[in-house]
Amino acid sequence: MGDPAGVGPEIIVKALSDPQIRAVIQPQVFGDRALLSQTASRLGLSIEFEVRQVNALDPAGVAPGAFSEVSGRASMAYLAAAADSMEAGEADALVTGPIHKKALWLCGQKGPGQTEWLEQRFRAPRVVMMLCGPRLKVVLATTHLALREVPRALTRESLSATVKLAESELCRYFYPRGPRLALAALNPHGEDGGLPGREEQEVLGPVVCDLRAQGLSVEGPLAGDTVFALAVQGRFDAVVALYHDQGLAPLKALCFAEGVNVTLGLPIIRTSPDHGVAYDIAGSGVADPTSLKQAIQMAVGMAGTREGA
Amino acid sequence: MGDPAGVGPEIIVKALSDPQIRAVIQPQVFGDRALLSQTASRLGLSIEFEVRQVNALDPAGVAPGAFSEVSGRASMAYLAAAADSMEAGEADALVTGPIHKKALWLCGQKGPGQTEWLEQRFRAPRVVMMLCGPRLKVVLATTHLALREVPRALTRESLSATVKLAESELCRYFYPRGPRLALAALNPHGEDGGLPGREEQEVLGPVVCDLRAQGLSVEGPLAGDTVFALAVQGRFDAVVALYHDQGLAPLKALCFAEGVNVTLGLPIIRTSPDHGVAYDIAGSGVADPTSLKQAIQMAVGMAGTREGA
Repeated sequence: MGDPAGVGPEIIVKALSDPQIRAVIQPQVFGDRALLSQTASRLGLSIEFEVRQVNALDPAGVAPGAFSEVSGRASMAYLAAAADSMEAGEADALVTGPIHKKALWLCGQKGPGQTEWLEQRFRAPRVVMMLCGPRLKVVLATTHLALREVPRALTRESLSATVKLAESELCRYFYPRGPRLALAALNPHGEDGGLPGREEQEVLGPVVCDLRAQGLSVEGPLAGDTVFALAVQGRFDAVVALYHDQGLAPLKALCFAEGVNVTLGLPIIRTSPDHGVAYDIAGSGVADPTSLKQAIQMAVGMAGTREGA
Repeated sequence: MGDPAGVGPEIIVKALSDPQIRAVIQPQVFGDRALLSQTASRLGLSIEFEVRQVNALDPAGVAPGAFSEVSGRASMAYLAAAADSMEAGEADALVTGPIHKKALWLCGQKGPGQTEWLEQRFRAPRVVMMLCGPRLKVVLATTHLALREVPRALTRESLSATVKLAESELCRYFYPRGPRLALAALNPHGEDGGLPGREEQEVLGPVVCDLRAQGLSVEGPLAGDTVFALAVQGRFDAVVALYHDQGLAPLKALCFAEGVNVTLGLPIIRTSPDHGVAYDIAGSGVADPTSLKQAIQMAVGMAGTREGA
């Protein structure tokens, strides 16, 4: 359910009231039944989905639009309960609602998001964030690093492992015959040998050579200003971006409300909407469920591809 | 005319055959009449525009699709002749065709493009590149720097001067009542104080504060992954991006063939298509004149706004 004080409850009620969504899933929401009911009646909707009650808060004590320790701890209790259920094999996919990063701090988590929490919870050796819009999939080689730290974080070893993981997961869940990948360059006009800059010759080029020799369909490094446009035009199934904003800026410019976050590398399917708790509009009834619906549809598609394999 | 061996002649003939273009300009093309005539007849078109003949080459010696010293020197002779004409006040705006960077090297120019050549030619104290698509205008605070050099290149002084120049030029040519500008952050989620990273607190934030105190409409720093989407939605007239690919990746993802390059800070209006010589298709007749047409239309609009002031 995500943060009870954020837009999570509202977008869940809205998304699960959509007949197109109800036609393709049997949802179980890990959260608070009373709060979801209140939310639904405020919206003139009703709850026609299963709620797995997690007794973590008194909903009367939750004020929409503000972080509290109670709502933060509740967010994490919902996530933990859902993870347990996934581990027990009770569901095909996990779609997580937005939480506030302070909720993670309460649990001693230093990382910035639920992705890192799930990585630890499922003891995954490596996870990779992928962001998907209707016309573009972007895999991130680094995530929440300061820009000045990015060049030195891009080692041949880590980049190669990221691309390989992305390739096998994209194969498993999206493109059974193998995805066509592109690797973005780091420096401007980086496909012309990366002048100015040397990472193209020293790191990116050798990684691509090596992976191609192993049979992967990877092109690059390709200039960071055009590689996303080429993918939009259909030349590639996904682009491996080297840092957070390199991948997300073109994606969000193309599809602001429809982005989906997919975690690759977990033993489970996990997607989430590509937005936060949006405290500024929580409780007002105007939250847009589009990204959550897309996250659900993507999880359904991934489960279907996995089953079909 | 740009490089005679590139797509320049072809896109010029195509663009200037378009009645919508002919209705709004009286073009003078600085280049080679014989080559333009050959190009036109190959395309089944005719030349109905004024050619200012620059005797710089024997067109019989130019092979489409390959750089030669002859075509390189000719490219620069066309540019120089057009610049002289602009300085003499013979035209309202300069639209430049694509050249190969080696042409500039022949002239002892170290910089990567015609923009830097024009900056020196017109003794401009500072110029700023702006890239425009139908739904997004992006100003670049740095251009052809290696990514690892970007953080230290962003000083308060240079960034402030760039934003001020962009503001006054956007006011002069596009938004007489003043543009609404956004400044992109450097680090991921950089609007939350730039954690991780410190440039937001030390450089970007103070620059925005200072400029707002001077009466400019500037917001930021705003997270680099969403600021372009906000501009597309109409919140801002232009985004100041901190480095080449930050601005160009979202722009090109949105409008691959319609981008226009505008040079701000010259005493003349100068636009150009947002693509290169495209040697791979030069001479084949398939080059797309859309970006050149957009560059012409933008120059017309800029001249009109300036006149109306």
